[in-house]
Amino acid sequence: MSIRVGILGATGAVGQRLVQLLDPHPDFEIAALTASEASAGRSYRAAAKWGLDFPIPDSVAEMTVRATDADEIPDDVPLLFSSLPSSVGEAVEPGLAEAGYVVSSNSSNARMDPDVPLVIPEVNADHLDLLEVQRDERGWDGALLKNPNCSTITMVPTLAALDQFGLERVHVSTLQAVSGAGYSGVTSMEILDNAIPHIGGEEEKMEDESRKLLGGFDGAELDLHGMDVSASCNRIATLDGHLENVWADTAQDVTTESAAEAMADYPSADLPSSPAPLIHTFEDPERPQPRLDRMLGDGMAVSAGGFRETPEGVQYNCLSHNTLRGAAGASILNGELLAREGYL
Amino acid sequence: MSIRVGILGATGAVGQRLVQLLDPHPDFEIAALTASEASAGRSYRAAAKWGLDFPIPDSVAEMTVRATDADEIPDDVPLLFSSLPSSVGEAVEPGLAEAGYVVSSNSSNARMDPDVPLVIPEVNADHLDLLEVQRDERGWDGALLKNPNCSTITMVPTLAALDQFGLERVHVSTLQAVSGAGYSGVTSMEILDNAIPHIGGEEEKMEDESRKLLGGFDGAELDLHGMDVSASCNRIATLDGHLENVWADTAQDVTTESAAEAMADYPSADLPSSPAPLIHTFEDPERPQPRLDRMLGDGMAVSAGGFRETPEGVQYNCLSHNTLRGAAGASILNGELLAREGYL
Amino acid sequence: MSIRVGILGATGAVGQRLVQLLDPHPDFEIAALTASEASAGRSYRAAAKWGLDFPIPDSVAEMTVRATDADEIPDDVPLLFSSLPSSVGEAVEPGLAEAGYVVSSNSSNARMDPDVPLVIPEVNADHLDLLEVQRDERGWDGALLKNPNCSTITMVPTLAALDQFGLERVHVSTLQAVSGAGYSGVTSMEILDNAIPHIGGEEEKMEDESRKLLGGFDGAELDLHGMDVSASCNRIATLDGHLENVWADTAQDVTTESAAEAMADYPSADLPSSPAPLIHTFEDPERPQPRLDRMLGDGMAVSAGGFRETPEGVQYNCLSHNTLRGAAGASILNGELLAREGYL
Amino acid sequence: MSIRVGILGATGAVGQRLVQLLDPHPDFEIAALTASEASAGRSYRAAAKWGLDFPIPDSVAEMTVRATDADEIPDDVPLLFSSLPSSVGEAVEPGLAEAGYVVSSNSSNARMDPDVPLVIPEVNADHLDLLEVQRDERGWDGALLKNPNCSTITMVPTLAALDQFGLERVHVSTLQAVSGAGYSGVTSMEILDNAIPHIGGEEEKMEDESRKLLGGFDGAELDLHGMDVSASCNRIATLDGHLENVWADTAQDVTTESAAEAMADYPSADLPSSPAPLIHTFEDPERPQPRLDRMLGDGMAVSAGGFRETPEGVQYNCLSHNTLRGAAGASILNGELLAREGYL
Repeated sequence: MSIRVGILGATGAVGQRLVQLLDPHPDFEIAALTASEASAGRSYRAAAKWGLDFPIPDSVAEMTVRATDADEIPDDVPLLFSSLPSSVGEAVEPGLAEAGYVVSSNSSNARMDPDVPLVIPEVNADHLDLLEVQRDERGWDGALLKNPNCSTITMVPTLAALDQFGLERVHVSTLQAVSGAGYSGVTSMEILDNAIPHIGGEEEKMEDESRKLLGGFDGAELDLHGMDVSASCNRIATLDGHLENVWADTAQDVTTESAAEAMADYPSADLPSSPAPLIHTFEDPERPQPRLDRMLGDGMAVSAGGFRETPEGVQYNCLSHNTLRGAAGASILNGELLAREGYL
Repeated sequence: MSIRVGILGATGAVGQRLVQLLDPHPDFEIAALTASEASAGRSYRAAAKWGLDFPIPDSVAEMTVRATDADEIPDDVPLLFSSLPSSVGEAVEPGLAEAGYVVSSNSSNARMDPDVPLVIPEVNADHLDLLEVQRDERGWDGALLKNPNCSTITMVPTLAALDQFGLERVHVSTLQAVSGAGYSGVTSMEILDNAIPHIGGEEEKMEDESRKLLGGFDGAELDLHGMDVSASCNRIATLDGHLENVWADTAQDVTTESAAEAMADYPSADLPSSPAPLIHTFEDPERPQPRLDRMLGDGMAVSAGGFRETPEGVQYNCLSHNTLRGAAGASILNGELLAREGYL
Repeated sequence: MSIRVGILGATGAVGQRLVQLLDPHPDFEIAALTASEASAGRSYRAAAKWGLDFPIPDSVAEMTVRATDADEIPDDVPLLFSSLPSSVGEAVEPGLAEAGYVVSSNSSNARMDPDVPLVIPEVNADHLDLLEVQRDERGWDGALLKNPNCSTITMVPTLAALDQFGLERVHVSTLQAVSGAGYSGVTSMEILDNAIPHIGGEEEKMEDESRKLLGGFDGAELDLHGMDVSASCNRIATLDGHLENVWADTAQDVTTESAAEAMADYPSADLPSSPAPLIHTFEDPERPQPRLDRMLGDGMAVSAGGFRETPEGVQYNCLSHNTLRGAAGASILNGELLAREGYL
Repeated sequence: MSIRVGILGATGAVGQRLVQLLDPHPDFEIAALTASEASAGRSYRAAAKWGLDFPIPDSVAEMTVRATDADEIPDDVPLLFSSLPSSVGEAVEPGLAEAGYVVSSNSSNARMDPDVPLVIPEVNADHLDLLEVQRDERGWDGALLKNPNCSTITMVPTLAALDQFGLERVHVSTLQAVSGAGYSGVTSMEILDNAIPHIGGEEEKMEDESRKLLGGFDGAELDLHGMDVSASCNRIATLDGHLENVWADTAQDVTTESAAEAMADYPSADLPSSPAPLIHTFEDPERPQPRLDRMLGDGMAVSAGGFRETPEGVQYNCLSHNTLRGAAGASILNGELLAREGYL
């Protein structure tokens, strides 16, 4: 049985990935597309500068794009996927949730709000119940659920697998693809034969969001995980796929074997878009690589390799597809979780 | 007064950089070029696939390339710069030193030998006296001096500046240029739209060499520095310039200001190829960047930026040109030090 | 009913594409893999440095690689796909054909031999009968069939569509992907921030092969097409997909509309791997583009756009995936044609 | 004796190249910088996102940027270099010329106007006298002089050298660097692992401008050259340097030797920024290449290679640095010509 869904911010890089994943989705049907005022009233084909390596799906090509406005969203579309710029998300998402829509959002606004669950279904599905607190406190009929930043999503499943050893301290360096900044976010002159050692706000997102995702939830309040996280975020000349070097310091001893095994055994979620295995581990220290491994699990898997012991724990590399697993796919997974848990 | 010098391994990527820097050098004159047997007897123009963005210098273009063999080196060339593959370096450098040549080598063999000084003149020029021990022990008339790996050279001047705060632990992630692997080291299919999260042996070189460079020397024996270093080395699609994310944990408190100031004030060496300042610091957190900053100080400076405090110390980014400051220029600086200290 | 096939040169860039396409093929079953002596006896997983963006297929991963030698090929493998270096192809292909194997070869040797058909099934399937002449003249039980060079394949279907207007003169500039040179053919230092305006032998291949493909065959002898072709071949920093700028001078008038229509209507072949449509035409003058359009028709389509009239005819751009449509897929299409026409 | 000059559109990619070349210029002194209203009143350091691989020159860093407006330009700045967007150039350049300023402009507006000279000093310095016609007709005290498009400049000196053989028809394919579109003109997602086979308006510019540059001027009126030119323009992932494949059909026979010789012997101009030789010819068919050869003649030379005879003439490749020789340097050369010829 198909659930009608809308895509807020459908013309951007993540919006197009939402279209890619929702077009063939077994349970969801694209019923509304929104974008900025400039695109409203145009066909999706005309409004989106389609940038994926296959033709724009027929199901959406001639659909008329709507303005991103509560009045424009049909009432019979209960679930909205949001990939809005954060300032727009901040302005419209609460109103939509109040109006009764359930919003599964990739936008960075409100991710750290105490009553907004930040969820990766394979990691902290139990945080979803925070929506009850949210509804109580805000008086909303709908709901607002967030997925983390793409660079956070790449790392956190591997940390979740290691938390049995007592995570205390994490250092992480990222090598992030240009698609993470949207279609026009990084110019060619900035990145050809170059790398940029800073992505505004990204370090803080990784440091904060990972502690929320691995935090405890007692049914009423969410505690951040006690570990320290320090991130250093770099932009490089790859199209898709964030690669990360991680050092995880743990309270208990961890060997390379036990770390790799914990990741390989980390459970998937019983949701249509959750891959099995969730974490693909490599013995070859040169893997994972963005071009070769970002499409594992149809772009929804995380991969890890290069395990080495350190005096304090273990170091390794991890990777995921930033606009599939790290953005559009993350929101859709959360939508699947919302559907299964009866929030629609 | 000009000193006649030879270049061992003159046709490779570092060999060509040695030619670039030595051709206009005020004190050195290129008198001999060696390469593999296959190149011996050919003109340098024919033997080297010149890959720099200016024409091959006239002074060497028609010079006949010699085999890399002690018998082939003229006696009146006291100083040899070596950029040989390490297996070749291991085979021929000791014999050349025994035969009386002073070898300033960029090759990775023997760098950690207890009686082989590993030197960055601005950091540990005092280690040069280890050559006396070397001569005593090995009975050599000549000498063998090493510079560190390009990725080590990028980081160590910044660590030297911070050691006043008591270095205890270093984590470093590198984003290394393809030229570091030589002209044919990285294929285009490996690196376009990609990154490789491992460089064989490189992590260990950074971890070991940095402790030797910052170690103490009492005139007889060299102690490694007590800090722990963990490196994670990545290859990316840049031509030149290694960018590194560093976390330095220190015994004493260090602020971003004191860290940046310590680097900006770190002294240069009074040698022709040592830039002033040695370390260029940026306030813009998006700098240094490989394409924009690798040529600072004519390619001999290190640059640093992105300073942030951490619970244990400070994190920052640093950069240098890997085949100039990190390889050819490093050997030449060591040659200048050898000349000044009377080893020729 | 499945035909057992072998892949000669299975570890290279085209060999891996042959594995990719043959593994799920409805009519062919991979029964033998050959490579150089150095790889013989190893598992395919160990011998091939698998470079595609999905895992190595299970069906071949543990298959033992054989030496490329007639004695090593099992007798019950009637069809061999060859992606050997041309010098190896020249040495072994005739012997295999003599020994009774039917060889569908992508190697560049013998392509212009008068009794070796050079075939693109959608363009000149009738040339296949030249195999009768070949068998008569050479006394072979098997056969040797060639597909053209990847850059030729990209252009020739579009020229075939235009030949109704009387082709007289063709100028073509290519922007070719690095995969066309094999996994190690182009180094990263050669191509990053660069382009190379010459590919040895490629210009001549395009100029000669296109005239043979469009030539007439009377059942006994093959006449080259009378048009002149001048090619200029460039290597650029793309992974896959050859883009070409073509000027076609014709005897009759041709408008942009009639040119585009002739291409859009050009018939596909009734073979499993022939896409429909064969030629995808774009109105957007910025298309086709390598990254966006190389996978049209599962990588087997040609695309064209940018039509403009000239004083002598029409200019346009065309594109195809060089290692799928232009190499591995071309050989497989020829294998399908051989099977249908009863040569196995 | 130094002439005070202004730069209109000083913050863009070409504007920064103008700063680079004018800062050390022997005869010109930067006295005014203009940009859009948004930049007006700010320091050049703050207004320009400096993107060159050396620090911003001290002479301009703290200079206050002015609005691009006749009222804002000081009276004692007789010569203005313009790299304005063409719509802005169209709006302000005539007024400046009328107000008495001599404008040497790289902007694309007005290039084909019958009374606006379009000049490459080494090719058609005699066209400068068209300024007399311009002043007569328009009643201007100043003057407006244009240089051609970067892709035109690369090709035209080589055509000028061949015109002794009677140019009849030219086909040209370009492989153009991203800097030609300005700092934000090409996004990274558009060009990584990709090429774009069309640049809006560029084909027509090459086709028209080259005929004007090589046209005859009788002192009163300018005739376009009679040759036909067909261009196909591609954007590729290079930072700087336009590479072009040219076929020149000539009335008289031309050999590869005579073509190369005509180019190698083509005279330079006796102006400070004109390189000698103007055209650097290569025997190696793999040259010129953008990364290796764009800086020949300090970025002001054209290079050519890959000569092959065709049935109608000769084909070859040529290259120049698009923002130095092709834009900023072209305007400065024209400024030098204006100074020498007494127009200031």
